[in-house]
Amino acid sequence: MTMMPNWLKQRAFLTPERVAVSDGKRSKTFAALHEAAAVWARRLARVGVKEGEIVALLMKNRIEMVELVHALFFLGARVLLLNVRLTAYELGWQLDDSGARLVIADNDLAGRLGGDGRVLSVEELAALPEAEVDEKETCDLDDVATIMYTSGTTGAPKGVMQTYGNHWWSAVGSALNLGVQENDCWLAAVPLFHISGLSIVMRSVIYGMPMRLQPSFDPEEANDWIMRGEVTVMSVVAAMLQRLLAVLGDARYPDTFRCMLLGGGPAPRPLLEACKDKGIPVYQTYGMTETASQIVTLAPEYSLTKLGSAGKPLFPAQLRIENDGKTAAPYEAGEIVVKGPNVTKGYWRRPEATAAAIRDGWLYTGDIGYLDEEGFLYVLDRRSDLIISGGENVYPAEIEAVLLSHPDVEEAGVTGIEDETWGQVPCAFVRLKPGAAADEEALRAFCRARLAKYKVPARIYFVNRLPRNAAQKLLRRELKTLIPAEEKPASHP
Amino acid sequence: MTMMPNWLKQRAFLTPERVAVSDGKRSKTFAALHEAAAVWARRLARVGVKEGEIVALLMKNRIEMVELVHALFFLGARVLLLNVRLTAYELGWQLDDSGARLVIADNDLAGRLGGDGRVLSVEELAALPEAEVDEKETCDLDDVATIMYTSGTTGAPKGVMQTYGNHWWSAVGSALNLGVQENDCWLAAVPLFHISGLSIVMRSVIYGMPMRLQPSFDPEEANDWIMRGEVTVMSVVAAMLQRLLAVLGDARYPDTFRCMLLGGGPAPRPLLEACKDKGIPVYQTYGMTETASQIVTLAPEYSLTKLGSAGKPLFPAQLRIENDGKTAAPYEAGEIVVKGPNVTKGYWRRPEATAAAIRDGWLYTGDIGYLDEEGFLYVLDRRSDLIISGGENVYPAEIEAVLLSHPDVEEAGVTGIEDETWGQVPCAFVRLKPGAAADEEALRAFCRARLAKYKVPARIYFVNRLPRNAAQKLLRRELKTLIPAEEKPASHP
Repeated sequence: MTMMPNWLKQRAFLTPERVAVSDGKRSKTFAALHEAAAVWARRLARVGVKEGEIVALLMKNRIEMVELVHALFFLGARVLLLNVRLTAYELGWQLDDSGARLVIADNDLAGRLGGDGRVLSVEELAALPEAEVDEKETCDLDDVATIMYTSGTTGAPKGVMQTYGNHWWSAVGSALNLGVQENDCWLAAVPLFHISGLSIVMRSVIYGMPMRLQPSFDPEEANDWIMRGEVTVMSVVAAMLQRLLAVLGDARYPDTFRCMLLGGGPAPRPLLEACKDKGIPVYQTYGMTETASQIVTLAPEYSLTKLGSAGKPLFPAQLRIENDGKTAAPYEAGEIVVKGPNVTKGYWRRPEATAAAIRDGWLYTGDIGYLDEEGFLYVLDRRSDLIISGGENVYPAEIEAVLLSHPDVEEAGVTGIEDETWGQVPCAFVRLKPGAAADEEALRAFCRARLAKYKVPARIYFVNRLPRNAAQKLLRRELKTLIPAEEKPASHP
Repeated sequence: MTMMPNWLKQRAFLTPERVAVSDGKRSKTFAALHEAAAVWARRLARVGVKEGEIVALLMKNRIEMVELVHALFFLGARVLLLNVRLTAYELGWQLDDSGARLVIADNDLAGRLGGDGRVLSVEELAALPEAEVDEKETCDLDDVATIMYTSGTTGAPKGVMQTYGNHWWSAVGSALNLGVQENDCWLAAVPLFHISGLSIVMRSVIYGMPMRLQPSFDPEEANDWIMRGEVTVMSVVAAMLQRLLAVLGDARYPDTFRCMLLGGGPAPRPLLEACKDKGIPVYQTYGMTETASQIVTLAPEYSLTKLGSAGKPLFPAQLRIENDGKTAAPYEAGEIVVKGPNVTKGYWRRPEATAAAIRDGWLYTGDIGYLDEEGFLYVLDRRSDLIISGGENVYPAEIEAVLLSHPDVEEAGVTGIEDETWGQVPCAFVRLKPGAAADEEALRAFCRARLAKYKVPARIYFVNRLPRNAAQKLLRRELKTLIPAEEKPASHP
């Protein structure tokens, strides 16, 4: 089974009158979403978009973005999801590396790529006449549907290929764990350009379930929707949940709200305890771009007794902890290794990186965790080269590369430090060249011009040497010991 | 994606403490079901059951039958499901045709196969010592998991191969249509040796959902369970639903009861109207052994407005109506043709029958129906060679073959006639040899010795000629015109 009817077409045929997507003001049924996507597809065909080509979207969460994803699927194009917080330099890199032929950008974001001839604003696209087009009636589960870039130890971002099958099995695995109810409505306040948001678009069309969109997270509005029973499931990262709790105050969510899916890195225990006290049904989950969202989620009956665990693998995915090539014993920490039909087939045009990450069908995540004697996963630490700040992945190597490009910098190391609001923020350690005089503010300004805001180091410390092993490899985990003692307990802005 | 962890193993790992199966008195969690199945597997290994072999089950619905299905999956054996209402002759035919090496039979059914050396009663199996066994950790979706016999126009029953993938996709398609809720419990009062019952076993282990068993349908008990909220979904055929309505009287089901899945042939409209009046959530469905249960089911929002329709295909299955090799227009009746990952890959050891039924991946069902302008299926008539009596499939050709083997019978034709209780019952038309003197009772007694009770013709009419076309092919649809006028409106016992 690799061919399937196109999901939106089938859904618009099966349940045309159901609401597909809403932003709280406007809403569209599956029939209307289908029609809107078909119109976009005919305009995209006018600018020559063809099957197999890569088309990027640089958009915030809104109904048109959902329409455009489906329009590109109608054409058999592959959708590159661009993070709207990236700088022109970072965006250009992903466009060049992927070979994208076109970028559709929100009107206010189109300018960020300057005179790049590949950019078309949504407004410009909407003004185009429609061409005739043969919509694809089917999708092949083995075909690449979407691409999202993540970085690695080398600092060069790599495009994760997500097939239709990855998205399908992710949605099915989630359904078998969290259930599917007739009154469900899933709130996407996380970005659709991340897998946490895009996976909601997929579940919506596969389940026939309404999704609710926020262009950016608005805790007051989200709280209202939950209180009115309009939203029954919501995906969050810890920083969002904290803000929701603040808005909620002494009130409690109604019974209609059945799942707060908490991903994006280990959650602080006090936050989980606070949610438990307020009766908020938090489901901790563990997943990544490479697993097309959740791969491990805590089942309902364990949400209280296994507080702090990310749970067990979603049916039919598998998980093990590996240490020096051997499966670890219970409670023994090691690398989290996962397998399943929701796992990526690799990195776009990076056969070597793919071969290094995926061996015998198992994805080596680089994350550290352990299993208890019943097989529940506890994630101890995301991979040492990954900082998760407010749900965004930040890669030290990428920041180090920018710092090293400054004429005054001799050596640079970046690591994540705890932050009350964002979970973690990046922090840099720099050894200047002899006689160089750049100060912290100058280096941060240099970074701001080249990196998305959330990647700019919250602090930059000047040191005499960086911790390295015998092979001169930077030991990022040891960087924290270089922070002056008097600063350590503080929260970093 | 064709390899998956063994379902019961994975389920016992993921949610060991959830109830898996209950008969109202005894119940087993998934952990206990796993352990019980493992014990049976070790006993089956003692009698030499090996991967790929066919082992038949001749059992009524009970917990041990569920355990044995999973035990055989642990060994990689293929399970042949035998209808407990068949005669020794019919059973022997299926065993020989399939090449089964062993039959596990309920203690009170083991005798039916006389001294057949292949038979082992459940009691005898339970007394065996356990052998060591390597339980299969995975299943291959392309492997044949189960076999069920159905007949066709030739009268020779054929074994329908149901793969793990057929069962998986059937369960997933149903979940995406009917939803999955945490408090669900699905009642199997239909036999597990039919796909309607066996598919509940599969959903139970795939969803992690309790199933409730009745050894044979008991409407009072079923009603009690529904009233107490212990059963939320139930599979029925029309005759069962009628008896449930009689027990229900003026009462109404509680809101916890969310789905009465009604299959097994077209439902009488007055029955649907009565259920509508009582607020019973009836979901009409269409499916068959070859589609691993439901392939078309009416979605919740159309249960009232499209009363009488079987609905639309389950995600991601497809459906069309074909007439003379062309797709029919809306409201034009034709053959129902279906496609999807839940459709059988064919008949056991019958490549020709397989090639005739499945062309380009589409299964030609032989059933007649039409689509309305929105694509809702209305089933007009099951194939002309199929009688559905109380949910059991009855094949005229099989009964005709028995009648023709009687020394007095020259020609025989069988068709279904309407019956208030059973929907349809078989009725025979016989031309005796010149000078022969067998009467109706003698021929019915002859049939009773060779056919399951529900296949024995309710009436046998003696005629001078049978309707045949120019090629001398029997025209079964015209047989009814031979019934004497004064008998036509009556119900047949």
